[in-house]
Amino acid sequence: MAGIFMRASKLRTALRHLSSRSSLSSAAITRVSPADPCRPSLLCGSGQFVASARKLHAEAEGQKPSPAAAPERRPFSRVTPEDLSFFRKVLPGGTITDPDLLESSNEDWLKTVKGSSEVLLRPQTTEEVSQILSYCNSRNLAVNTQGGNTGLVAGSVPVYDEIILSTSLMKNILKFDSISGILTCQAGCVLENLSLYLEERDYIMPLDLGSKGSCQIGGNVATNAGGLRLLRYGSLHGTVLGVEVVLADGRVLDCLTTLRKDNTGYDLKQLFIGSEGTLGVITAVSILCPRKPKSVNVVFLGCETFEKLLQTFQLCRGMLGEILSAFEFLDSECMRLLNTHLKIPNPISACPFYIVIETSGSDATHDGEKLHNFLEEAMSSSIIADGTVATEDSKIKALWSMRERVTEALTHEGYTYKYDISLPVEQIYMLVEDMRKHVGSRAKSVVGYGHVGDGNLHLNVTSPAKDPSLLATIEPFVYEWTARYQGSISAEHGLGLKKRNYIYYSKPSQAVALMGDIKTLLDPKGILNPYKTLPDDLIPPHNPPAAVE
Amino acid sequence: MAGIFMRASKLRTALRHLSSRSSLSSAAITRVSPADPCRPSLLCGSGQFVASARKLHAEAEGQKPSPAAAPERRPFSRVTPEDLSFFRKVLPGGTITDPDLLESSNEDWLKTVKGSSEVLLRPQTTEEVSQILSYCNSRNLAVNTQGGNTGLVAGSVPVYDEIILSTSLMKNILKFDSISGILTCQAGCVLENLSLYLEERDYIMPLDLGSKGSCQIGGNVATNAGGLRLLRYGSLHGTVLGVEVVLADGRVLDCLTTLRKDNTGYDLKQLFIGSEGTLGVITAVSILCPRKPKSVNVVFLGCETFEKLLQTFQLCRGMLGEILSAFEFLDSECMRLLNTHLKIPNPISACPFYIVIETSGSDATHDGEKLHNFLEEAMSSSIIADGTVATEDSKIKALWSMRERVTEALTHEGYTYKYDISLPVEQIYMLVEDMRKHVGSRAKSVVGYGHVGDGNLHLNVTSPAKDPSLLATIEPFVYEWTARYQGSISAEHGLGLKKRNYIYYSKPSQAVALMGDIKTLLDPKGILNPYKTLPDDLIPPHNPPAAVE
Repeated sequence: MAGIFMRASKLRTALRHLSSRSSLSSAAITRVSPADPCRPSLLCGSGQFVASARKLHAEAEGQKPSPAAAPERRPFSRVTPEDLSFFRKVLPGGTITDPDLLESSNEDWLKTVKGSSEVLLRPQTTEEVSQILSYCNSRNLAVNTQGGNTGLVAGSVPVYDEIILSTSLMKNILKFDSISGILTCQAGCVLENLSLYLEERDYIMPLDLGSKGSCQIGGNVATNAGGLRLLRYGSLHGTVLGVEVVLADGRVLDCLTTLRKDNTGYDLKQLFIGSEGTLGVITAVSILCPRKPKSVNVVFLGCETFEKLLQTFQLCRGMLGEILSAFEFLDSECMRLLNTHLKIPNPISACPFYIVIETSGSDATHDGEKLHNFLEEAMSSSIIADGTVATEDSKIKALWSMRERVTEALTHEGYTYKYDISLPVEQIYMLVEDMRKHVGSRAKSVVGYGHVGDGNLHLNVTSPAKDPSLLATIEPFVYEWTARYQGSISAEHGLGLKKRNYIYYSKPSQAVALMGDIKTLLDPKGILNPYKTLPDDLIPPHNPPAAVE
Repeated sequence: MAGIFMRASKLRTALRHLSSRSSLSSAAITRVSPADPCRPSLLCGSGQFVASARKLHAEAEGQKPSPAAAPERRPFSRVTPEDLSFFRKVLPGGTITDPDLLESSNEDWLKTVKGSSEVLLRPQTTEEVSQILSYCNSRNLAVNTQGGNTGLVAGSVPVYDEIILSTSLMKNILKFDSISGILTCQAGCVLENLSLYLEERDYIMPLDLGSKGSCQIGGNVATNAGGLRLLRYGSLHGTVLGVEVVLADGRVLDCLTTLRKDNTGYDLKQLFIGSEGTLGVITAVSILCPRKPKSVNVVFLGCETFEKLLQTFQLCRGMLGEILSAFEFLDSECMRLLNTHLKIPNPISACPFYIVIETSGSDATHDGEKLHNFLEEAMSSSIIADGTVATEDSKIKALWSMRERVTEALTHEGYTYKYDISLPVEQIYMLVEDMRKHVGSRAKSVVGYGHVGDGNLHLNVTSPAKDPSLLATIEPFVYEWTARYQGSISAEHGLGLKKRNYIYYSKPSQAVALMGDIKTLLDPKGILNPYKTLPDDLIPPHNPPAAVE
């Protein structure tokens, strides 16, 4: 591994190389992700099951179930043989009842929640989805829409016996306009397949995720997936131009426009982006795709303080400007775990903080020069202590793995309490430092890494084994800290089943109440993805919760 | 004027200059807009007042009022002396009843609609807005929120005696984070003031409009303003991070987050972006601002066919990549009007189509080289016929005026029927050609210009004077044509009063019905900006319309 890196002492030589060569390697931009860099916040808190965030943990010492646990089953109908006959009529080959075939669809990717659904439906067309929902709504049957089932908050699996509506067979690309770069496709297209299709046509998807091999675009849009390209191309609220949605009662809402500009009334598609399948079933998507960059570079840098890291970010935004495509960080604790557990050596000298910067541009020479000038300035002003540069594909992947394999390294530590927090960028590391002081020797380690460019911190606290007293120390401290700085308790993973009752830490009660009103408007019987996203206190009657595992 | 342009024959010399000079002029990016390039679609159709788009013009020969005319006044309360006492108590210095002071607020910028409001309220705080709306809702008083009153569809003026709620005194910048580039401010901040504030701090606003000297950010967000930077920085649905809104009943909905990532529930702020003040009053906005580019270049090119123009667009997106910031076009008819009416000479040889391309980047030398390479390739492959380059501020402004002054030139032609259409980019000029054939010699001229990069066409049909028979030839032809290609009948101007009943050409009835449901949910009495955005058939009871002028 060490051989592929240029040692720190050779950085200046590398820089000269960068600025003088006529063409950098045109590295493929697809990265291998040995482990998803964005693992879930597995909330196992023991707080009280109440609505107010302030009170969520007031009785943490009590025996009541966790706010993350499932509530009691709501009074939906149960699937009858007559229902199955109807489904088989609509979907002769797509009505699955074999328990073995249902098993993987009943359980989430993290194997923390397991439903007991007895029916998996695999429609191929919007019309079929419409017929199914119309029927289910009239019969009061609950429906759990499932894409790639790669979610991290148990939003994509049934909690009880909800019918699983899989979009996996809805995998047609409907249109691609090579002038505008606008792609229209069915919801079940796998993200990586779309990426490959586009790369052949000199375009890329505006989002890239560790789970791209199995996640589906419909699920990406339904969960407003973030990922590695958000800094450059923005969120799906900006890049998704249209959606086709089947509403709870089977009506098809056609907002599948492929226009960059349309100011004729409310932008209804936005309601469905990030609503986790609770307002409708997304059946097709149109999305604006960027051109494939011709040149990609990655640098790995060390900083003495987080303040200097932020100065580096500012300098970088100014000097790399339009070619900056990622600015990620990890702390020295992450590096220790990489060294210890995965035997990945530090390619530069030891520092408290490390940065991964990626550039993507249309001219390799220019990108190399910009990078060279930035690094010269950063070194001469002493905001970075050391660094190394990669311009070839294999080296780029190796440097990226320093950031992407932190999660994998953490799994070797024992038990990890994981949090996915969004904060004003100035505050993101303060939370790690405060947490470190707060938990003291109770924790094995407290590590921080994440997307500086997006203000998104992945905070991880480890212990040799599951430790309720450590958890009670971490929560609600972490949520209260986040709320104090107007942060988000779920930057990119959504709420699903696991975080639904924590929403009040990030949203005022007026906003949550309005969410409930919109849910009632669009899905009055509540059949779509029940027990998810909305806190339990919004759903009358307020039933006492029951643990699901 | 001619002196500032490099003649076509000198283009190659200019290119050599571009690629060899060490630094291009660091031109200011603010452009002078002698006339707003995006003038309104003044709909003066004589179609029947019915809900269905198909039927909108079915009885065009009849005597019924235009779908653009105002409906009958709804049964709101009228302002009493007791109401005025309340307003004066809440806003001692901000309750205006002097008819002279009210006059300009009662009339739209185009002077086509004039309301008869007798009260103008000028709150300074969100709390004051909340008190006003709570009171108006309880009293059933209609409210028309007004920002800079620069709208083009009569969305920002009262139709009858609605109370005018002006945001003009809500002009405080609340926070600017120089690391993330996130600005938070009150809704009444004038766009140009925000731009100046940011440019001093090395940032720019992500939108730029001809009306920037008077339009306000709250109005920009409420109307989802497009403008000249959309190609590069995307729509406000992506760049606006948060809004604070006062709902019809006075409740304050705080979605004023300053986070790039937040996946905790439905993204409610999106509902208010582009809803034209019909769902709530935006009182504050947070927005993500890009860094100020260090280098700006403009080129003016000629093409023999629209197909070659589209090929140029594709080549340009590939070779200019991340530095492309505008790709605008005008046709030879526009050039003729510029020559004839404004005495602006053509800086290059005569061509059927002209293109204005702008680049904005972080390195002047690199940008110059990219532009040079692109122009060499475009010339050698003969997709462009001629061109000239500007790198200095005054020359940049002069080239931009070729695009920006077309509207002004049109005003010298007599009467102009104006349409603002969004279409798949391949189709945008087909509409001009089809319209030309369709109207034949009835029109003086049929001209097309607009934002190729956004698929946004400004179609203008002129005649010596107002001509109902010409109008009957244009409409509904233009709307039906647009609907056939899944275009939008209002790309960036919104619906307001004038286009509300044309919505069915661009939105299916299911979507319009859902808009109505959301309006009823958020504003059950319909007091917020009545008679706007929503078609009349959504509002029970269905009263016959009355002309407002």
